[in-house]
This record gives sequence, structure tokens and C-alpha cells, in this order.
Amino acid sequence: MTVPETAEKIKSMEIRGAGRIARTAAEALRDHALSLAAPDTAAFKKEMEQAAALLVSTRPTAVSLPNAVHYVMAGLDPSVNVDEARNGVIHRAEQFIQSSQHAVERIAGFGARHIRDGDVILTHCNSEVALGCMIEARRQGKEIEVFATEVRPRNQGHITIRTLNDAGIKTNFIVDSAVRSFINNVNLVIVGADAVTVNGAVVNKIGTSQVAHTAAEARVNVIVAAETYKFAPRTVVGELIEIEERPPNEVLPDEIARTLPNVTVRNPAFDVTPPEYIDLIVTEQGAIPPQMAYVIIREYLGWEIGEFNPGGGSPAGFNGE
Amino acid sequence: MTVPETAEKIKSMEIRGAGRIARTAAEALRDHALSLAAPDTAAFKKEMEQAAALLVSTRPTAVSLPNAVHYVMAGLDPSVNVDEARNGVIHRAEQFIQSSQHAVERIAGFGARHIRDGDVILTHCNSEVALGCMIEARRQGKEIEVFATEVRPRNQGHITIRTLNDAGIKTNFIVDSAVRSFINNVNLVIVGADAVTVNGAVVNKIGTSQVAHTAAEARVNVIVAAETYKFAPRTVVGELIEIEERPPNEVLPDEIARTLPNVTVRNPAFDVTPPEYIDLIVTEQGAIPPQMAYVIIREYLGWEIGEFNPGGGSPAGFNGE
Amino acid sequence: MTVPETAEKIKSMEIRGAGRIARTAAEALRDHALSLAAPDTAAFKKEMEQAAALLVSTRPTAVSLPNAVHYVMAGLDPSVNVDEARNGVIHRAEQFIQSSQHAVERIAGFGARHIRDGDVILTHCNSEVALGCMIEARRQGKEIEVFATEVRPRNQGHITIRTLNDAGIKTNFIVDSAVRSFINNVNLVIVGADAVTVNGAVVNKIGTSQVAHTAAEARVNVIVAAETYKFAPRTVVGELIEIEERPPNEVLPDEIARTLPNVTVRNPAFDVTPPEYIDLIVTEQGAIPPQMAYVIIREYLGWEIGEFNPGGGSPAGFNGE
Amino acid sequence: MTVPETAEKIKSMEIRGAGRIARTAAEALRDHALSLAAPDTAAFKKEMEQAAALLVSTRPTAVSLPNAVHYVMAGLDPSVNVDEARNGVIHRAEQFIQSSQHAVERIAGFGARHIRDGDVILTHCNSEVALGCMIEARRQGKEIEVFATEVRPRNQGHITIRTLNDAGIKTNFIVDSAVRSFINNVNLVIVGADAVTVNGAVVNKIGTSQVAHTAAEARVNVIVAAETYKFAPRTVVGELIEIEERPPNEVLPDEIARTLPNVTVRNPAFDVTPPEYIDLIVTEQGAIPPQMAYVIIREYLGWEIGEFNPGGGSPAGFNGE
Amino acid sequence: MTVPETAEKIKSMEIRGAGRIARTAAEALRDHALSLAAPDTAAFKKEMEQAAALLVSTRPTAVSLPNAVHYVMAGLDPSVNVDEARNGVIHRAEQFIQSSQHAVERIAGFGARHIRDGDVILTHCNSEVALGCMIEARRQGKEIEVFATEVRPRNQGHITIRTLNDAGIKTNFIVDSAVRSFINNVNLVIVGADAVTVNGAVVNKIGTSQVAHTAAEARVNVIVAAETYKFAPRTVVGELIEIEERPPNEVLPDEIARTLPNVTVRNPAFDVTPPEYIDLIVTEQGAIPPQMAYVIIREYLGWEIGEFNPGGGSPAGFNGE
Amino acid sequence: MTVPETAEKIKSMEIRGAGRIARTAAEALRDHALSLAAPDTAAFKKEMEQAAALLVSTRPTAVSLPNAVHYVMAGLDPSVNVDEARNGVIHRAEQFIQSSQHAVERIAGFGARHIRDGDVILTHCNSEVALGCMIEARRQGKEIEVFATEVRPRNQGHITIRTLNDAGIKTNFIVDSAVRSFINNVNLVIVGADAVTVNGAVVNKIGTSQVAHTAAEARVNVIVAAETYKFAPRTVVGELIEIEERPPNEVLPDEIARTLPNVTVRNPAFDVTPPEYIDLIVTEQGAIPPQMAYVIIREYLGWEIGEFNPGGGSPAGFNGE
Repeated sequence: MTVPETAEKIKSMEIRGAGRIARTAAEALRDHALSLAAPDTAAFKKEMEQAAALLVSTRPTAVSLPNAVHYVMAGLDPSVNVDEARNGVIHRAEQFIQSSQHAVERIAGFGARHIRDGDVILTHCNSEVALGCMIEARRQGKEIEVFATEVRPRNQGHITIRTLNDAGIKTNFIVDSAVRSFINNVNLVIVGADAVTVNGAVVNKIGTSQVAHTAAEARVNVIVAAETYKFAPRTVVGELIEIEERPPNEVLPDEIARTLPNVTVRNPAFDVTPPEYIDLIVTEQGAIPPQMAYVIIREYLGWEIGEFNPGGGSPAGFNGE
Repeated sequence: MTVPETAEKIKSMEIRGAGRIARTAAEALRDHALSLAAPDTAAFKKEMEQAAALLVSTRPTAVSLPNAVHYVMAGLDPSVNVDEARNGVIHRAEQFIQSSQHAVERIAGFGARHIRDGDVILTHCNSEVALGCMIEARRQGKEIEVFATEVRPRNQGHITIRTLNDAGIKTNFIVDSAVRSFINNVNLVIVGADAVTVNGAVVNKIGTSQVAHTAAEARVNVIVAAETYKFAPRTVVGELIEIEERPPNEVLPDEIARTLPNVTVRNPAFDVTPPEYIDLIVTEQGAIPPQMAYVIIREYLGWEIGEFNPGGGSPAGFNGE
Repeated sequence: MTVPETAEKIKSMEIRGAGRIARTAAEALRDHALSLAAPDTAAFKKEMEQAAALLVSTRPTAVSLPNAVHYVMAGLDPSVNVDEARNGVIHRAEQFIQSSQHAVERIAGFGARHIRDGDVILTHCNSEVALGCMIEARRQGKEIEVFATEVRPRNQGHITIRTLNDAGIKTNFIVDSAVRSFINNVNLVIVGADAVTVNGAVVNKIGTSQVAHTAAEARVNVIVAAETYKFAPRTVVGELIEIEERPPNEVLPDEIARTLPNVTVRNPAFDVTPPEYIDLIVTEQGAIPPQMAYVIIREYLGWEIGEFNPGGGSPAGFNGE
Repeated sequence: MTVPETAEKIKSMEIRGAGRIARTAAEALRDHALSLAAPDTAAFKKEMEQAAALLVSTRPTAVSLPNAVHYVMAGLDPSVNVDEARNGVIHRAEQFIQSSQHAVERIAGFGARHIRDGDVILTHCNSEVALGCMIEARRQGKEIEVFATEVRPRNQGHITIRTLNDAGIKTNFIVDSAVRSFINNVNLVIVGADAVTVNGAVVNKIGTSQVAHTAAEARVNVIVAAETYKFAPRTVVGELIEIEERPPNEVLPDEIARTLPNVTVRNPAFDVTPPEYIDLIVTEQGAIPPQMAYVIIREYLGWEIGEFNPGGGSPAGFNGE
Repeated sequence: MTVPETAEKIKSMEIRGAGRIARTAAEALRDHALSLAAPDTAAFKKEMEQAAALLVSTRPTAVSLPNAVHYVMAGLDPSVNVDEARNGVIHRAEQFIQSSQHAVERIAGFGARHIRDGDVILTHCNSEVALGCMIEARRQGKEIEVFATEVRPRNQGHITIRTLNDAGIKTNFIVDSAVRSFINNVNLVIVGADAVTVNGAVVNKIGTSQVAHTAAEARVNVIVAAETYKFAPRTVVGELIEIEERPPNEVLPDEIARTLPNVTVRNPAFDVTPPEYIDLIVTEQGAIPPQMAYVIIREYLGWEIGEFNPGGGSPAGFNGE
Repeated sequence: MTVPETAEKIKSMEIRGAGRIARTAAEALRDHALSLAAPDTAAFKKEMEQAAALLVSTRPTAVSLPNAVHYVMAGLDPSVNVDEARNGVIHRAEQFIQSSQHAVERIAGFGARHIRDGDVILTHCNSEVALGCMIEARRQGKEIEVFATEVRPRNQGHITIRTLNDAGIKTNFIVDSAVRSFINNVNLVIVGADAVTVNGAVVNKIGTSQVAHTAAEARVNVIVAAETYKFAPRTVVGELIEIEERPPNEVLPDEIARTLPNVTVRNPAFDVTPPEYIDLIVTEQGAIPPQMAYVIIREYLGWEIGEFNPGGGSPAGFNGE
């Protein structure tokens, strides 16, 4: 798929999901590098940067997209000849693709070690990596039990309990507001993440922060399962993660809403869990305390502060600011 | 309505609601007292006690029912003649009926004073007394705004927002798990109660304790609006309030549930908010700190410890234990 | 002094201070009762109620004034003859005066028992009863040390340190914002109160709630010394204590303020300390947990809920609502 | 037994235990009243007060002793004739004896209701009433499990586990410092009390406050089982409960201690648990929140503040201050 | 300016302010390197180290001074020839000067992103970088409002409100002890720092820790704006930041103090805010959680543990310990 | 000592103690490298890896052993000739031995700086490094006082107080459950560690977490003294530290236990203190916040995530998985 085709599909949301977006972008850059007939490294670099900027611009608030593009582009060494530069890009792209493909299973492996035989786990929303930890623990023969929430307004809990049911895991299904009633029966909370900020705050499905707060009150540990490409580099320069507010009719049918002129539906898709309510973030690079998000952003994702333009606030090098 | 008719209607839940149950029982006892042709006070007392025991036995876990019956029966003085004894009962019954009828408006009046112009209030579930405070404040001309939750699984929030809408109050409608996201925009939480225990814990719609915990984290005051007949006398002798667990299909349709053999729905109707998350309980007898529940039970409701049978655990005098 | 003269002097603030206002009002009612030539009890009652209403109306937000008037008027029994009614009023007035006169010394005696030899105490503002506890402890030969704050903007700390200095107590003087720096050197906080609400919240000089919060963080006990006439009866019916905001030029000289058009001075005189940061309130009727404020209001001060008009919100009987 | 004999045996600690001391004193007063040949009520009162003062003086820091004596003496009405006065004393003495004899079983009955089938309870030290709740729950057929601590330095845990073992209760025995390791396996903490102060703080075996603090961190409820004669009336007037410090060689053998000149053993027998870590106090008069201690002291024990001499600090009427 | 001249001016406090001290020291080293006529690298190194040691010794407790000197000296490579060594020093000096000059504006840019339109911010004391964030947010067109404290005893709040006023920012001026009264009206706290320790504790103007503690109680985020040269390297080896205690007459006029022999003024200039009350530290190198202070010290400032002498406690290499 | 001999002695626990085990393993590898007559680097590497795997397998749960072996083996560069490879190993082994030998004294030096003249320190168990800090502070002339616990069931406190006594330090000896009673007399807690996990949780003698929790409640800082080889690398991949449960008869004599069929002794040797109760970990590489454990594991100990096998969970390269 060419870079413009990929960009189009990401923009139109034909390609979705943090991991898939990231890998597709890396593939597009790799293929672009392969196909480019640049006379020298400078020309190659210029064209690659244009491609990178195009990809990044398609979903400005996605976190995994700039992480992937940046990781790949860091392989382009402007001081070598054009073939070496090309190989550098290709090598990093393949590295990223492979590492991200194995991320879920690695996290499941690491996370499963935190689950002991007989544990009762609570999860919220429908996170592939979070569920992966439980399924891996079950696969290892541990007898576990799960409490899963309904997850209003889109009821992702229905998918979660089907996955758990099919994995042969004993599951309890509860409404979102029943978490505090059952938390004393629970040993461990495991949830996923949409984004992790530089100070270890976790942006995830609305309600996650209530779950974590409730767990902290009852001295129940909270583990967040998150691939490193979920870590948000631009929070290092102070940028806030924008919390998407979704359509009112997910919560209240239009025909009711229109009879209630004084009523406004507020429907944020995510909330922010502060690091003090998170005991561990399990990534494919290992388990870390939330405060280590900064190190992940800098060392695994390879962002340097110099790459950010403090005035304009955008990573230098590909989106032209 | 005769005592057996009243008992039947309470049992079959034709008569519902804490206040209505209580008042109907008081009326039945009053009418019974009027119609009894007892030769002497001892005979009158015996018959009245049988009627009282019948009424109390219809809904063993209702809180307002024994409160009403006990209040009325306390008017029966065995040392006076039968006409005076009858009048005592009738007087207490009328007193109870009148006081409980005005309870909601008195609480609304007291509670409205805690609402200042410009306040933003959050409420959970659909409590007549809690909403009464807001509507009274609005009626007094205060500009207020309310956040109301959906209240899964039965969506009582839909009724709440209609009431608020019709009272001309600016209202925001949110899912239950969004409370923590908005609590920093809120000045005050006001909720109702199904029961109040001797140490000031409040039994109310599932999710109330999460709301109160979340409010405490953000230094937002929590007011509970509760008529005194919601205070549970038998908690003085250690009895626990039983938390009703309602049908699974309120949460998950049967046709889905039957495809998920490893999944159990847990659907408790209420949860328990500890007194440390409650700043004030507003009753028709005035505002009190939650720890004063004991005084309400003893002094306003008139229960004495001697009336409980510590072995069997039931109030002496009407249900024969 | 006649009732109108007394009313005038309280209104013009010639008579100030919670204790002095209360005692003067009681004296005025006593003298009025003595001088009234009423033909019968009904007439006497009517005239006394007018006097009572006049006194209460002079300082609507003072707490001790209605407490005193109410206490005295409760001695007027409408079912006895006029001389007995008069004597009832006089007796209650004298009782109130005497009890309030001894309140400070009784509180000092009770409070001093909480101070052990070698204790280091922190106080904020300039409370006669709080200082009384320390001076009494010193008088008993206990070696104590005190940290006293400056108390901006009116620097009442200057008076406090002089009092302590003259009592031979080793004193440290610190700015208000240094409390957290020194609290680990402190064993006990003792402060006074301007008002105590029905749920045990304490209204006192601005900064008190920060001191109490800081003490709680360091597991240092907080004692509030407060005469019972400081307890605010109308908070039982939901009324809020109004926090007086004082002139800006106490904080910022007018000549500076007028050069700063975008700057507003906010100068509340008091703040509210929640009951969870208060370990004990020491009154002349004994030491109580803050949640017992309700019992003080009802039993020592003699207010019954029936005396409040829930609609209008005023104590029945003397100010005509 | 005569009053002087009883006094002697209490003083020499031949008679020990809060309940036994209290009942013996009540018996001595009853027998004294029976045997006194006073010519009139005044003379009878004088002699009884001397006897009361003698008894109270034997163990100045015991809490149950003045409670018993005061309860009995409150039956002496100086306005009736000597026989009626005598009968008043005798009646109150018998009432006290009977009520205190049944206190343990009543508390066990009330407390057992807080224990559900399957509960895991932690207890500290060896409290007859606390254990009574568990044994009663077991007797009712509830399957329970208990964690019991060693209770250094006197190892009262050894007695506790024997009692539990013999009641057929599954018991885990742990060192005192292992409480936090196991508290997440526990549903409920039940302990006894040596004394309860006016604001609901509980004085109990050293370590109790750590247990309660640890339970609060894990959202585990803490119940204190305490007879009302454990409530300390003189804390109302500010008196502190003295914490006894016991011999060093309970902790460190003398032969070791003497080789360690720089080492001092500190061996307080009790510590103080603040009311915020206690959910409920179960007395024979019913379950109360800790803040209700004041009401117990005043209403059940019958102490009035007027009975305390604020200067000298002793209850008026029997020990001559 | 020569090194001795610079040293003298830093010592006499003619040159003040963390940033200015640091840059002047870097300039002095650069000029010294330029002027030194050393025969070889070893001699050059020796002379440079003497100069470095002299500069560091002038203000032993300043944090930015050793940071600057160390940063510059790290450019001196002993294995290259003298000209290269000289260039290394010069290059690092210029780098340090430029980076520190832009630090304030970079921090303002990063910090302003955390400020949303409509935010209400509280600040304490008069920090150029903290105010920079607000002014930059205002410059971007955001409507903000600020609460600024008086900052006793030196009233730096007067300067702060003038700066805010002149930037057209709506400002409220309050006494230091009113923070808790207004914090529920505030969205964000932004303060500066005098020093940051290895575990992320912030040393700043007295009162900062009370503000941060109060903000935490109300779930209000706290941002510290701090240039990296404020991070204290020697805290890595356990050294404590000394809290300067300033003259008593800043707090109490001498003429009053001398009349109060039992009164001592305690006037610490700074207090310590623990990392748990800080959500983010914004540096010119990006935003970090407080726990990342260690990484800043090691990686940006370039300190290695080997450079500290654990016995003597001083950085090896320039001050000879 | 040969590698097999060393392995045997570690296995049989003839060689004990985290530091001694680690150093002996490093010595064995060094000597093995010296004695190996390998033809080329590949053969040398293979033999060394076998030796390394043997050593690591002897005590699978020891933390310092794989740290030492890994540190040494990281010196083996497979791309150089066999002599250089050998020297690499030898150099790293000597480096490790020397650094670990000086670790205790370095930590004592760093930790002593946190102790001020007049401080009162509490310690739990018998940690050489923790005591080292106090003894070094005393050696520097600081007047300090220590509270030391008994440390049931093995009474390590007896050793601790002897060490403190002999160092001339004023010491108080208390039972484990008396910590909360005395913590307000204490300025600082210093304890050792058996292991530190990736998120900064500290595994140490049972009771440590209660001490730290109690200190946090009273705003007393907690310092953990721990050599870097105590940091547990495999927690990065999610492995849990196994808590050893020791023989019941350490707690309850067998002859008693056998008479109590319903009683089980639970005797975990360690507990886990969460990072939020730890202010600082002092290592020989400097003081760090607990969250920096990850950096210690990666940077000082040199573990890379790639070295772990996520499926099998063991460090690649030496134990054959």
C-alpha cells in the first residue's frame, strides 16, 4: 500500500486500533523507502520526511501513529550513503512491526505472572492486552475468577464477558456502579490504556479512574497493560491528551433528548487515572512503575526533547511546524 | 381498609414506597383501634398487638413499616382505661401520618438552604426528597445546575432528568462511570436513602457509595435527604440491612446470558455508604451528622433497647419472638 | 439598661464579643421581666416576646444572642400565674449569666487536663478560652511551649504572644504559612471557635482549617475550646453560617489597590474546619466529640426542632416569622 | 462481704477484671445498705457516701468501679424516708449486677449478627466479649475462620487460640507484626476494650491501634465489643486515661537488660485507637458509633456534668473533693 | 569579568538569583579558559579546576552554581590537546548559557499548555517561571483568573499581583491562610522552586507545602515550574538542603520583640513539599513527574555518583574535599 | 574455590547473606576465567556460561546471586580474542567485589547525612546497612536516640539493641505492636531490605510494612538502606518475589501446637512495603526515590529486557531456558 493510500485509510478510520495503525504506517514507510529512487541521501531524506509528515497528519490525536513514524525515521542516518540510509529505515520499520506484533503476547506473559492461583480479578472495558494476561494465566492452569463491568454507554463489557466465557474463565458481570460493592472480593484490577502520559497518568475508557480509586481504597493493586506505543510523547512538552466527547445519543435516544430542552448529555469517552492509583504498568518492554513513563518515552520510543518545538508544540522533522 | 386488607396489599406490593407503606399501616391501626369493641384495656392491647404483628410480618425487611407501627403502638398506655388507651393509639397514628406527610416538604426546605445561588449539584438515582431540595432552591430563585446519572440497570436517571427539566433546572446527563470526570465541576452532592443504620451508614441505590467516595476525594460535600422513618432501628441490636439482589435480566438479556455458561450476573440493588463520606443527613426533624442516627432511632422513633430481644433479635411486643 | 438601650448598643457594636452580648441580653430580659407591670401571664408573655424579638433582630448573624434569649425565654411558663412566670424568666436569666461567666474558667480547667508536662502546643488567632487552657496548665506547674501564628491580616497573634509571654510561657512566633514546617515539633493544637454547626464543623478565624488539616496530616490532635453559646442552633434547620468578608484595605493599602485595576482583594474573616479534623470540643459542659454538637444544641441550649419554622427558617416565638 | 473487706480485696487485686470489680462493689453497697441502722435518710445518705468514697478510692484508675458505685448511689433519693432510700439503693444495685452479668451474652448476641457465614475475622489480645461474638456466631452454625495474634509481651494470644480451638473454630495464629500481611484475607476485625473515652477513642491492649489502622487501609470494618461500664466518665471533664507502663522484664530478661546500659525497655500495656478507625462499638445496650460514647456516659451510666468538680476533677459525692 | 571578581560578586550577593549566578559562573569559566596560557592539557586542567573550586566555594548552599560549574567542566577532556580541551570548555559554557537563557521561555511554553481557557490558577510567592506560564497562556488568548497570596513575611505577593495586573490577568489577592477557603474555586496550582531534591521534593518559599497539601485535599493539580539547574545534585549522596532561617525582625519589629522575653521568632525562608503533593515538574527539558528528578540530575546535569566523595560529601574534582 | 565447590556451599547455605553470596559467586567466576584453558572465545564463553548457570541454579530465589553473575558475565565480549574476553570477565568480577565490599560503608555515609543532631530514629529487624547509618551518625558526634523493635518470632531485635548499645547510642526497646504508640516521638524510620522490586516495593522482615504505614500516618519519613544487588531484576518481567513461610514452631512450640487441632500457625518471614510509604532508598550508588528501582536494575545492574525470556521467565544465557 502506498503512503497516500495508507494515509487515506487511517484518516477514514478504515484502519483502526492503536496497534494496527502503527504497524500499517511503519509498513508504508518501509515500502516507500524501498520504492524511492532518490539520487542521494539528502533527497531520500526529504522525500521520506514528506511521507512521514503526511502519515502523522491524518490522525493528529492518535498516540501510536507518531510513535511508529518517529521510530522508523530515527533509522535514517543523513551521514551515510543513500542505500545505507534506505536500509536503516527498512531495518527500523521491520523492527517496529515485529516488536509491536509480539507486544500483546509478551505483555500477557509478563502480566500472567502477577496472577496467582485463586485470584479474583476485576477489569473494566474490553482491552485485548488486559484480557490476554488473564487468558494466559488460565492457560497456565491457574484457577481464576473475573468481575467484568458493563461499560456504559457502548456496553463493551458484553464483548469482554464473551471472551472470558470462551476462555473457560468464571466471570461475574456487574453494572459500572457496582464496583465498590464487590471490590473487597477482588485481589487485583487489570485494565488496558488508550494513552499514558509522561507522569504516568493513564487515559482509558470512562470509569477507569473510578475503578482505580475504589481499588486503592480497598488496598487492591491496579495493573495497567499497555504497549509502549501507547505512551504519549508530546505530553513531555506539556501537551494535554484531548478527551474525546462522543455523540449524546449513545447515552440518551434522540427522541427522548429532544423532549428535554434543559438537559444536555455529556459523554466523554475516556477519563484520566492519576499515577498514585496505579501500581504497575506492564509493557512489552517489562513492568514499570507509572512514573517511568518518561523513560519509556525517551529511551524505548527514542524521543528527545530537542525534537519538540516548544513554541509551536509539534515534533520537528515531519509535520513542518 | 382493615388490617388484614392492608397487610395483604403491603405484602403483594400493591402499596409501595417507604412513606406510603408507613402511613397506610398507621391508618390501619388507627381504624382498627376505632372499630375494636374490647371490654377492657388488656383485651384491647392484646388485639392491637396482634394487628401490629400482622402488619410488621408482611415485609420483614422494610424499614418504615416497623417504625410506623412502633410509633403508633407506643401511644397505647396499659395503665389507663380502654377509651383513653384507644385515644392514645389514635392520637399517635394521626401524629405519625401528618408528620410523615410533611416530611418531604420540610426536608426540601431545610436542604434548599444548603444550596447557594450558582451551585452545581450532582445527584444519583431518583429520590423525591433529594430532588425536592433542588426544586425548592430553584423555586426560591437560585440559579442552579445539576449533574444526574443514568443509574443502571433500571435507568431511574431518565425520570430524574425529566423532573429536573420540568422544574426549569439546567441539567447534565452522564453515565454512572463519568462521575469522577465531572466531580470537580460540582459543589455539592445530594442523594436520598433507602435506609440509615445506627452508625450513620446509608443504604441507597447501587453506586451511591462510589459517588460519595469520589466526592470526598475532591472535597465536595455530600448531603443525604432522608425521612426519619428510613432509620433502621434493628441495626441497634446488630442486625444487618439485607442488600436485595435483583433479577439478572435487568442487566443482561436472558437470550445472551444463556449463551454464556461461565458468566453470572450479580445485581445488588443497593450499596452502603459509610458515615465518613457523608457530611449531613437532612431529616424532617432537622439536619444531623450521620453519627446522630442513633439519637434519631431512640428519641424521634422512640425505640428503646429493652424492646429488642437480644436472643431472637426481634422487637418485642408485636411479632411474638 | 432597658431592652431598647441594650438592643441599640448591640447593634452599634458598642457591646461586642459573643459572651458579653449574650450576658447583656439576658440581663436586659431579666430587668425587663422585673419592671413589667403585666395584668396576667398572657400579657406578660406578649411583652416579653416583643422584647426578645427586638434583641434578636439587632445582630441577625450572631450566634450567642439567640442562644441567650432563647434560654431565658424558655423559663416563661404560660400555664402559671404572672408572678411565677416572671420568676421563671428571672431564674433562667441568672442561671445563664452565671453559667456563661464561669464557662471560660471551666473550659480552661477541662482543657488543661489534656496538656501534659512538656507538651508543645500550637494555637492560631487570639482565643480567650484556648489561651485559658494553656495558662491554667502553666499555673499547675506544667512546663509547656507554644507556637503562635501571626494571624494576617489583623495580626491578632501579636496579642496572643503578649498574653503568653506575660504568663511565663515559652512561645515561638511564626507566620501563618509556617505551620506545616513546625507541626512535627508540636503535640497538640488548641484553638477557639466563633461558631459550631450542628454537624460539628467549626467556624473560626481564617486559617484555622489549614492548621487543622496540617495537624491531621501529622497525627497531631486538635482541640477546640468553645462555650456552648457558640453552637449555632439554626444550622439544625439547614441554615448556613455566613462568612463575613471584611474590608480589602485590611490586606492591601488603598493607595496600592487603586493602581491595580485587575486585582480584587478577597478577605473572608473566617473559614470552616470540618469535624473530621477536630478531635474534641471542650465546652463548659464537658468535652465532646464534634458530632455531639447536635446534642448540645438540643439539650443544653434547649432548642427543639418544633421551634423552627421550616418554611421561613426562623425560630418561632420572638421574631415573628 | 463488708465494704472495707471488699475495698481491701479490690485494692490488693484479689478481685480483678472490670466486670467483677464493678459487681462486687455494687454488692458491697447493697449489703451495706441492708445492714445500716440509720435513724433517718440524712444519716443513711452520709454513711452510704462514705462507703462509696472508700470503694472508689481503692483503684483510682479503674473505669468500671466508679461507674458501678455511681449507678447504685443514684438510687438514693434524699427526699424520701430512710426505708425507701434504702430500697432505692438496693434496687439499683441489683439492677446493675443483673445487667452487667448479662452484658457479655447480650453483646455476643448483637455482635454475632455482624458475622456472616464464611467470614474471616481478626482479633487481637484475649477479650471475653470479642470472643463471645465469634463463639455465638459459630454456635449459630456459621462457618467462620479467625486470625489471632500472639500479643507480645504476655502472649495472651495463646489463651485466645485455645478458646477458639475448643469452640471448633478454624484459627490462624500469627505474630503481631504479620497483621498487614493477612488483612486482605480478613472481612472483619473484632476486639475488646479496656476503656472508651468520651469521644469514642478506645483504650485497649498495646497493638490494637495498629490493627485498626491496618484494617482501615484495607477497608475492613472494625468492631469493638465493650460493656457500658468500660466507658470512662471522667474523660468528659478532660481527664486523660493513664496508660500503664508495665515491668521491663516482661519484654527483656533482666539478665540481658543489665548487660545493656544504653538500652531502656518501654512497655506500655495499652494504646489508644482513635474513633475514625472504629466502625461500631457493640455494648449490651446496643450497637453505637464511637462518637455516641458521650451519650452512653450520660444516659446509660447516668453521669451529669454537674457531678464533676472542674477544679479538682473528681466526681462529687463520694470521694470528698 | 575574571574568576576572582565573579567569585567576589557572587559571595557578596551583588550577583543574585539562581539563573544569573549560574550563567555568570559559566561565563567566568569560559573567559578564564580563553585567557589561560597553559603549556599542556594537564596544566590547563589544573588551573581550570582551581577556578571552578573557587567559584563553587562562594555560596556553598546555592544549587545552580555547582550545576553550572560542573556542566562546563565536563567539557574538559584530559585526553586531548590543550586547544581541544579549551574548546571543549568554551563549547559547554556557551551551551549552558544559551540553554539557561531560554529555559524560562521554554518552561512558559510547556506550562501554558497545561492551562485551559477559563482556568483559575493559584500561585504562591513570586516565581518568574511560574508567572511566565500564566502570562504565556494569557498571551495565547486564554481567559484565565489567578489567586495570589500575600507571602508573609516579605510580601512578595505584592510584586506578583502587579505583574499579573500588568499582563491583563484578572487576579484575586488573599492572605496566606485563606488558601483552603478558596481552593475549591481553583483548577490548578502553579509555583516555582528554589531547589528540587533527588526524590522530587521541592524546596520553595515557606507556605508552598501547605498550598500543595491543601490542593491535594481538593483534587487540584500542582505544577512546579523549575529550570533544571535548580535540581540539587548533592541530595543524591544524602545531603540535606539547608533551610535558611532569616532575621526575626522580618516578622516582628525589634521594638516589640524586645518587650517579649519569652517569645522567639522562628522565620524559615523555605519549606519542603513532598513529591506526593506534586503532579508535574515542568523544566526546560520537558515535563516530568517529581520522581524523575534523579534522571535530570544524572542525565541532563551530567552528575555521576562516582564524582561524589561519600566520606567527605563533596563533588570530586573542583573543591578539593 | 572452584565453581562447583562454591555452588555447593551456596546451596547448602554454608555461604549465606546477600552480599557474601554475591561476592563469592563473582570470585568463583573470576577464578574460573583465570583457570580456563579455552582454545578460543567461543569455547571460553560456552564454559563460562555453564559455570554461570550452575551458580545461579543453586538458590533460585536469591536476588543478589543472579545480579552478581550477570554483572560479571556482561564483561565477556564475544567479539574479542580469548585473552581479552578473559580479562573482561576478571575486570568486572573485581569491580563487583570491590564495589559490593564498600557498599555498606558508602550507604552508611549517605544515610548518616539524613540524620540530624537530636534525631530519634526507629528501626525494625537487624539490618547491617540500616544500623550502619546510625552508627556513622553517632561517630560524627550527633546525639541520637533509637527505638528498636523486638522482631518476633526470631527476636532479631536483641542483636540490634546490643549493636546500638555497644555503639553508645541511647536505645529504647519495644514490642513490635508498640510502634504506633511511640511513632510521634520519632523523627525518622530507617530499615534495610531483602529485595526491592521494579516499582520500588520493598520486601523486608515481616512487620516492616506496618512500621512504614504507621510512619506515613504520622508524617515521619521512611528511609530504606539497600545495596543495589538487592534489586530484583526478574520483577521487570512480572515475576513475583516469593515470600518464604518459615516453620510454625518459631511461633508456637510443637507441644502446644499439637494440642490445638483447629489452629494453624502462619509464619511468613517477610512482607511487602509499597513505594508510597517509602521516601528514599539509599544505595551505594546514591539515594533514589523508590520508583527509580527500574533504573537501578537496568543501568547499574545492567539488565536488559531482551535478556529475559518472556515465555519461560528466566534470564537467557546462563540457566539454559
